[in-house]
Amino acid sequence: MTEQLHDTTVRGFASDNYSGVHPEVLAAIAAANDGHQVAYGEDVYTERLQQVFARHFGEGVEAFPVFNGTGANVTGLQSMLPRWGAVISASTAHINSDEGGAPERVGGMKLLTVPAPDGKLTIDLIDREAWGWGDEHRAQPLVVSITQTTELGTAYTADEVRAIADHVHERGMTLHMDGARLSNAAASLDLPLRAFTRDAGVDVLSVGGTKNGALGAEAIVVLNPEASVGLKYLRKLNMQLASKMRFTSAQLIALYEGDLWIDSARHANAMARRLRDALDAGIAAGELPGLGFSQQTQSNGVFATLPAGVADRLRERFRFYDWDAARGEVRWMCSFDTSEADIDAFVAGIREELAAA
Amino acid sequence: MTEQLHDTTVRGFASDNYSGVHPEVLAAIAAANDGHQVAYGEDVYTERLQQVFARHFGEGVEAFPVFNGTGANVTGLQSMLPRWGAVISASTAHINSDEGGAPERVGGMKLLTVPAPDGKLTIDLIDREAWGWGDEHRAQPLVVSITQTTELGTAYTADEVRAIADHVHERGMTLHMDGARLSNAAASLDLPLRAFTRDAGVDVLSVGGTKNGALGAEAIVVLNPEASVGLKYLRKLNMQLASKMRFTSAQLIALYEGDLWIDSARHANAMARRLRDALDAGIAAGELPGLGFSQQTQSNGVFATLPAGVADRLRERFRFYDWDAARGEVRWMCSFDTSEADIDAFVAGIREELAAA
Amino acid sequence: MTEQLHDTTVRGFASDNYSGVHPEVLAAIAAANDGHQVAYGEDVYTERLQQVFARHFGEGVEAFPVFNGTGANVTGLQSMLPRWGAVISASTAHINSDEGGAPERVGGMKLLTVPAPDGKLTIDLIDREAWGWGDEHRAQPLVVSITQTTELGTAYTADEVRAIADHVHERGMTLHMDGARLSNAAASLDLPLRAFTRDAGVDVLSVGGTKNGALGAEAIVVLNPEASVGLKYLRKLNMQLASKMRFTSAQLIALYEGDLWIDSARHANAMARRLRDALDAGIAAGELPGLGFSQQTQSNGVFATLPAGVADRLRERFRFYDWDAARGEVRWMCSFDTSEADIDAFVAGIREELAAA
Amino acid sequence: MTEQLHDTTVRGFASDNYSGVHPEVLAAIAAANDGHQVAYGEDVYTERLQQVFARHFGEGVEAFPVFNGTGANVTGLQSMLPRWGAVISASTAHINSDEGGAPERVGGMKLLTVPAPDGKLTIDLIDREAWGWGDEHRAQPLVVSITQTTELGTAYTADEVRAIADHVHERGMTLHMDGARLSNAAASLDLPLRAFTRDAGVDVLSVGGTKNGALGAEAIVVLNPEASVGLKYLRKLNMQLASKMRFTSAQLIALYEGDLWIDSARHANAMARRLRDALDAGIAAGELPGLGFSQQTQSNGVFATLPAGVADRLRERFRFYDWDAARGEVRWMCSFDTSEADIDAFVAGIREELAAA
Repeated sequence: MTEQLHDTTVRGFASDNYSGVHPEVLAAIAAANDGHQVAYGEDVYTERLQQVFARHFGEGVEAFPVFNGTGANVTGLQSMLPRWGAVISASTAHINSDEGGAPERVGGMKLLTVPAPDGKLTIDLIDREAWGWGDEHRAQPLVVSITQTTELGTAYTADEVRAIADHVHERGMTLHMDGARLSNAAASLDLPLRAFTRDAGVDVLSVGGTKNGALGAEAIVVLNPEASVGLKYLRKLNMQLASKMRFTSAQLIALYEGDLWIDSARHANAMARRLRDALDAGIAAGELPGLGFSQQTQSNGVFATLPAGVADRLRERFRFYDWDAARGEVRWMCSFDTSEADIDAFVAGIREELAAA
Repeated sequence: MTEQLHDTTVRGFASDNYSGVHPEVLAAIAAANDGHQVAYGEDVYTERLQQVFARHFGEGVEAFPVFNGTGANVTGLQSMLPRWGAVISASTAHINSDEGGAPERVGGMKLLTVPAPDGKLTIDLIDREAWGWGDEHRAQPLVVSITQTTELGTAYTADEVRAIADHVHERGMTLHMDGARLSNAAASLDLPLRAFTRDAGVDVLSVGGTKNGALGAEAIVVLNPEASVGLKYLRKLNMQLASKMRFTSAQLIALYEGDLWIDSARHANAMARRLRDALDAGIAAGELPGLGFSQQTQSNGVFATLPAGVADRLRERFRFYDWDAARGEVRWMCSFDTSEADIDAFVAGIREELAAA
Repeated sequence: MTEQLHDTTVRGFASDNYSGVHPEVLAAIAAANDGHQVAYGEDVYTERLQQVFARHFGEGVEAFPVFNGTGANVTGLQSMLPRWGAVISASTAHINSDEGGAPERVGGMKLLTVPAPDGKLTIDLIDREAWGWGDEHRAQPLVVSITQTTELGTAYTADEVRAIADHVHERGMTLHMDGARLSNAAASLDLPLRAFTRDAGVDVLSVGGTKNGALGAEAIVVLNPEASVGLKYLRKLNMQLASKMRFTSAQLIALYEGDLWIDSARHANAMARRLRDALDAGIAAGELPGLGFSQQTQSNGVFATLPAGVADRLRERFRFYDWDAARGEVRWMCSFDTSEADIDAFVAGIREELAAA
Repeated sequence: MTEQLHDTTVRGFASDNYSGVHPEVLAAIAAANDGHQVAYGEDVYTERLQQVFARHFGEGVEAFPVFNGTGANVTGLQSMLPRWGAVISASTAHINSDEGGAPERVGGMKLLTVPAPDGKLTIDLIDREAWGWGDEHRAQPLVVSITQTTELGTAYTADEVRAIADHVHERGMTLHMDGARLSNAAASLDLPLRAFTRDAGVDVLSVGGTKNGALGAEAIVVLNPEASVGLKYLRKLNMQLASKMRFTSAQLIALYEGDLWIDSARHANAMARRLRDALDAGIAAGELPGLGFSQQTQSNGVFATLPAGVADRLRERFRFYDWDAARGEVRWMCSFDTSEADIDAFVAGIREELAAA
């Protein structure tokens, strides 16, 4: 049945995974269809994907396509840790706040979290939990996980990643990066993927596809083979091994072989920037009473604060989420398919609701 | 990139998941695209899917789309068991032999397995492990899991399922069915899905899509809500919650809203029957020396035995797997896209290799 | 071999589990010896223990003897939680900081921790993590765990426990108490055990024995049977079921049937008080330059701060642990066998080392 | 309280853990008492224990005392396996049948079991499950676990162990031995412990104490350090780390430093032999109609078959367990404290009940 059940004109700012599939990704899925291909990853698309990522990250990397971001993070981290290992992360990290406890329950790891106001770990924050090696009473902190871009829309610079990686490695730990929005970081930093990942010392990386126009495709990319063991088995036992993997790999090829990944990310970031700039201008003009921003806008999300009641009224017209309702903080996300018209209509809506407040 | 990397004329008999996506499923994915839909299952496609399955199974059932069969089985079983529970299954069950230990490691359950020569549990086989309730030294046998059709291509009749269900329920256990090839069973039995599942006493069901023409879509369907708890949470923490779930649900709607599920399954079964009949005729005519069959052909797989060396030579022309190399047993699977010409060419190939043996 | 390998005159302030077994406990073990008793808990000592705890906590409670405190906490908490549950605790809680990740890895639970400067949760602290019910992306906060006395030597009053319990229950959660030092709390509060546990709303309790003169014996005591399920099975599968349980139960009977539990705890608390009082007096007299206290002394531990270098020199004569080396904080623990002479010698030593600083 | 609650004259044949503590073990516990010792294993008794086991097994072994046999087996096996590992064992192995699923649930391992009529694995039996390395769909068989003496009272010869070890090692696997009744094996084989363990190729060993007169003490002994990793951490996170470990180690020293281990085991074996011989003689004389034996009597257990109804009547006078009620099989266990008079009275009882049948 090819029936379309939904109104395709409805858009919003709730999440970059409310958007659909980029037409080029859909075309790639169709192109990978027909005939028979070996299941479970021994197909030519998964083989090609290795080359695609080798061009981005250099020789010697290995990519393991999986279904979703939680699968990529938990499985990647598990491959970096013995059974007694712990992961240091920001308390806002997706692995801590949005994965239903999968890292602990499926991955068997303990998270050692520290508060990070802008979502970014620093050496000082890491050191709050980076201690106690050799003491069996303490879950052993052996991996640090950072998110790029962060859950708060901020981006680590390549130098910041490098400083963390050096610090982590000096202490015998390894560095994991949750790159569900890795492309947005590249667009924000205007750097090739390699510059702020492998070259900056990241050992294992989750590479996102779904939030950037894929139907559902992520990859664990091992940048440092010495930091990861057993992914072949862990992916299977963690129930993340696709039988018809050719279609997962085809999506990632569609994104990462050419420029679709960066074009889409640049677009999403530009839309967030357009939103932020318009609102900043309004604030400067004294026209948006009560509007503020809780984070810098460095990628495709804008974190704002609104007077009481405004968010709920605005939400009747545009879908988005509260981030911290207690302090009136909301999150507005842009995606590959957000249009300038979407932004302009939203700015007008914000303007109206604030005026009515 | 829409490049096609593979030779779409290559076909084989290795597995029904070597095949691709049925064109109607692909069209359904495209129709579900564009615009924004709420992520993580609150979309209109997932809502519609509930109605689709309600038509098949009756009111009061609930469907949870997931990524793959292992995810469906482990998560469904976990929802049926306390932490001290065990599952009785055939030793050939996919959950025991092909899921990399996921039921034990992710699900935390123990499997109590019994040998079943044709892949089908019986009351006597179940009773070998159905004992010891109340003894904390023994993992508590609380669920029986059967596969329909089985991993050996055989099908339980509705009466057989009912007899098992009654026996299981009388002992305070519940019944799980791994229906990765449920459609093939319906085609084999010529019965509606409900007749040999819900009406026969099955409590929780894995409904397959991927092996029958989906890109990657399975569902846990709770037929008896009293037998399952917490699937909403378990699906997430088991890393089986798709963000863009509209596309998973659209695949299942494409299959199960109309007749695509049964038409495709009937076709695959018919192809296996064509293969078996042609070979049976050859055997009867004394033309296929050394060929035998180890299982009945009741669905889309043929299990045959071949003289030493024949399988390997035949495999140079047609891809398929050994099932039990020690006794020369091979498995030949048909799928929705297997053609009569495929079968005829394969029969000719078998004939040639046996003649050359 | 009955050889004594150690110097029994060596004492210290490192931990209450550096002490040995109270002679009455040893006598009880001997009295439970000889002849045959049913293994795994169906012995008369374990039966008697139920009555002993019923006298303390009232009818309807059930006690499950286990080997150690980690086993009691993890198994008790696990019995209170579905697979998707999370536990709110202070970040200083033993379950978070000293159990090697057992709650996460063996128990499969997520800990949601909040900083509590004196080791005591408050309603405000609990509410930082008590939210998000029904959202499968968030590990569900379903249990609050408090430690009595806390890891910082402080004690909740009965009213404080009651206020927390009411708050917790109103939100559909249940209350766990880690009572590894429960007796010290009773001594500190001068209340019967029941007053600040069952009567104050605690649902499941870890009752300590080892830190108060047992060889190795703790118990999970279910105060509210509706809040716990499956402990019989969980204890076994968590590897905490003693075969010769009569000896575990005999230890707990020796402690809790008469007054040994409270006499020993009062003594340990009094020794800590003696230490604190002597040092307070010295400080008041200006004789202990640089000595301070980081916590109130409400039970058997004294938390002090010392000038740089003093702790290490003092440790050459008396064994104890740093608590937070970065800020010069140390922990001095007293036990049932700490003598007044031990305290006086230690005070003299502190005095000397501070004078030499 | 030193009250004795039980009738010490009651004896039976139910299990070697129905017996109590050998007086020498109790004396050793008392000798280890008083004064302070570092907790969690850094005490002089645990240090001495290393030397004790070094004398038995040679230099380079390391012993980790734990609470119970399940803890020893699961933790030892876990240290031998990556997260994707599986253990081949007899289906009658304690790890499979009597540990409540702890190996799967806590250890995260899959058991691949084979039926072994006399409880002993053979190379042929092992090879039924020793295959599939490198295939991520199959839990990887990386350890073989044998029990010595077996759960059926039989003993592997040193040559049998060596043959298994060679076979296992040639295939890249390692060998675990559950030695809960290791002493009984040494007594049966009349060999030093080393001869049929380390010298025969066993890599990791569970050494039993509890069934041979300890209060509750077992040890994981790593015979081949290359086969085990992380036991220090695993013991803690598996909740098997005793705080007052000096008393656990003192029990094991009491057993293994001198001859108590072998004297007690020889006695228990001799009592089983006395029972078997008396009954064999009665059978030969035609005086015990319907009595048979299902296993050889090679250690401290006798496995017999009785006519319907006899076991239940006999059990009114002497406690013991059915082994396989369906075929009238019972198990009679002897322990260090079984007396000749116990045996003679039991033989008389059997004789009477069979006569009355």
